[in-house]
Amino acid sequence: MNSNYFVVIMAGGIGSRFWPYSRATYPKQFLDIIKTGKTLIQESYDRFKKIVPEENIFVVTNEDYVSILQKQLPKLKAQQILAEPNKRNTAPCAAYACYKIAKLNPRASVLLAPADHMISDHEKFATIATKALDFVSKNEKLLTLGIKPTRPDTGYGYIQYVENDSSFSKKVKTFTEKPSLEIAKSFLASGEFLWNSGIFLWNVKTINKAFEKYLPELHELFTQGQNAFFTDAESSTIESIYAQVNSISIDIGIMEKADNVNVIPSDFGWSDVGTWKSVYELSNKDYLGNAVNGKYVKIYSGSNNMIVTPKDKLVVIDGLDDFCIINTEDVLMIVPKSKEQEVKNITTDLKREKLDKFL
Amino acid sequence: MNSNYFVVIMAGGIGSRFWPYSRATYPKQFLDIIKTGKTLIQESYDRFKKIVPEENIFVVTNEDYVSILQKQLPKLKAQQILAEPNKRNTAPCAAYACYKIAKLNPRASVLLAPADHMISDHEKFATIATKALDFVSKNEKLLTLGIKPTRPDTGYGYIQYVENDSSFSKKVKTFTEKPSLEIAKSFLASGEFLWNSGIFLWNVKTINKAFEKYLPELHELFTQGQNAFFTDAESSTIESIYAQVNSISIDIGIMEKADNVNVIPSDFGWSDVGTWKSVYELSNKDYLGNAVNGKYVKIYSGSNNMIVTPKDKLVVIDGLDDFCIINTEDVLMIVPKSKEQEVKNITTDLKREKLDKFL
Repeated sequence: MNSNYFVVIMAGGIGSRFWPYSRATYPKQFLDIIKTGKTLIQESYDRFKKIVPEENIFVVTNEDYVSILQKQLPKLKAQQILAEPNKRNTAPCAAYACYKIAKLNPRASVLLAPADHMISDHEKFATIATKALDFVSKNEKLLTLGIKPTRPDTGYGYIQYVENDSSFSKKVKTFTEKPSLEIAKSFLASGEFLWNSGIFLWNVKTINKAFEKYLPELHELFTQGQNAFFTDAESSTIESIYAQVNSISIDIGIMEKADNVNVIPSDFGWSDVGTWKSVYELSNKDYLGNAVNGKYVKIYSGSNNMIVTPKDKLVVIDGLDDFCIINTEDVLMIVPKSKEQEVKNITTDLKREKLDKFL
Repeated sequence: MNSNYFVVIMAGGIGSRFWPYSRATYPKQFLDIIKTGKTLIQESYDRFKKIVPEENIFVVTNEDYVSILQKQLPKLKAQQILAEPNKRNTAPCAAYACYKIAKLNPRASVLLAPADHMISDHEKFATIATKALDFVSKNEKLLTLGIKPTRPDTGYGYIQYVENDSSFSKKVKTFTEKPSLEIAKSFLASGEFLWNSGIFLWNVKTINKAFEKYLPELHELFTQGQNAFFTDAESSTIESIYAQVNSISIDIGIMEKADNVNVIPSDFGWSDVGTWKSVYELSNKDYLGNAVNGKYVKIYSGSNNMIVTPKDKLVVIDGLDDFCIINTEDVLMIVPKSKEQEVKNITTDLKREKLDKFL
């Protein structure tokens, strides 16, 4: 494995669409939501350690989650854990990680990926990711992995690329946020669009230039901050930087503006595990289509349900079809699977009603 | 109040039809299932203390429930609590209480009643019960309170009485166990049938004779046992007696056989609180017909549900109608309200599967 290749796992999300299974204090990436025996971040780590040396895997997360992270990935050394004092979206997160890695190794190439996605074909992913790292190590490109779409999903961002580009990575024309169903269908029909996987690659010099050009405040802050990285002053420096930066995504802040963005059309069984329905689809199911995450679940009649319950709790169901039944220590949610997108609204309502203790 | 009048509250049941809210370790009579602010046995006690002196109220329960009982009815003195070592149905329970009371007061008249029923018209009940005690104090009769039926319920026992008997209490013709719907309808049409409330009255001499005649083994055991009642030997004596007696109800053992049985047609808003549906009917409901027992329950859409959840647990529901949603510390049950009678089967299944920890 190439010691100049690095992976940054972005693990700061709170996954409110998986409430009440994921909680503000214990978000989705730290849960074994698909029941594979590993949590999503453990899955990610194991996937990436086939691509880069383990000491080159860095994880950015909120400081509140550091202790959970250390428990779940005990091999991570302190310097591989980047603790953010606030949630500032992906651009500051990417800057922190890339400027820190650049100090360690100015010849580094980095793959950034969310902690909470699933990829079914590990081998194909490893092949593409390695080729992609090779590519960015030699080219001044901001690269993203695009997923060949299989349905007109309105929950994803789309990337349009230059179709007649026959090379391994294609030049990107546009980024589009969650489209309407009509538009999503036309995207699919055109053959020019890919799902935005949120997986980015570049070498540290290229991203440095991009930050300097498109997010100069971030560039300045993190360039100054570099002196403190890998020293005792790192955490106080980051505290001070994060107090000054705005919340902005790497997509909006850089990718949508830059003109050296490429995408690799990919096909390695990707899911962003974004909703209960996608968890349902990824899960093993009984012959009636019930996906069950729990030890004691009795279904007298009922089909196509997504059922989650703690290991020591019994759930008895009769006469329910196509529901999400999510049972936790202190919250029970029973909603039709078709309303998966509304779970986020429930958490908003609870916040408004000052019922934060259930969030 | 007449100091010769006694009440025996029978509180030994396990109420498996209210699983998982009622548990083998914490049965129905000790729960505030209708959300009145009092548990069913506290409701019963308060109802009876208007009829007899408080020191004349005795409670028979399983020895496992004595500590719960003492907490819920702290005024009860030790001698008023009759602890059964085993479940032996109502005949041994009645014998124990009546032979014990007879030793205390040979001129006693006793009203026996289940701990877990609800009566809405307390005043009417007090009037009828007092008249009934007066009646049995002067007459060698086994008296029962029959409820004027309002629907052809197939879950109750029925009592047929001699219609042309114009006196306050009518002579009983037959007892009938849970009939078919067809038969229940004909009972209702005939006007000669009442629901068996399980509330019995007699003086201790009359019941003594009845036991001697119809259940002579019980009579012999409890007559011998009387020496030990109100002494330190009571509990070991009862232990020994209960090891020898068979399980039999007072209905089958005596009432259905005796020829001196009368019934008082009554109408005081009685419910045996026998199923979740009856709890639902007795409960306050929101404008969509949801009966909610719990502090934090959010219903986005849903009507006519019976929802129970611990005070500190949130329940969020969407798209559910006519369901029982019973959430406890370790069990969640979601079944259509129409299947209320099947709850008992669930507990049987759990027992067979050796999941007793959830019973």
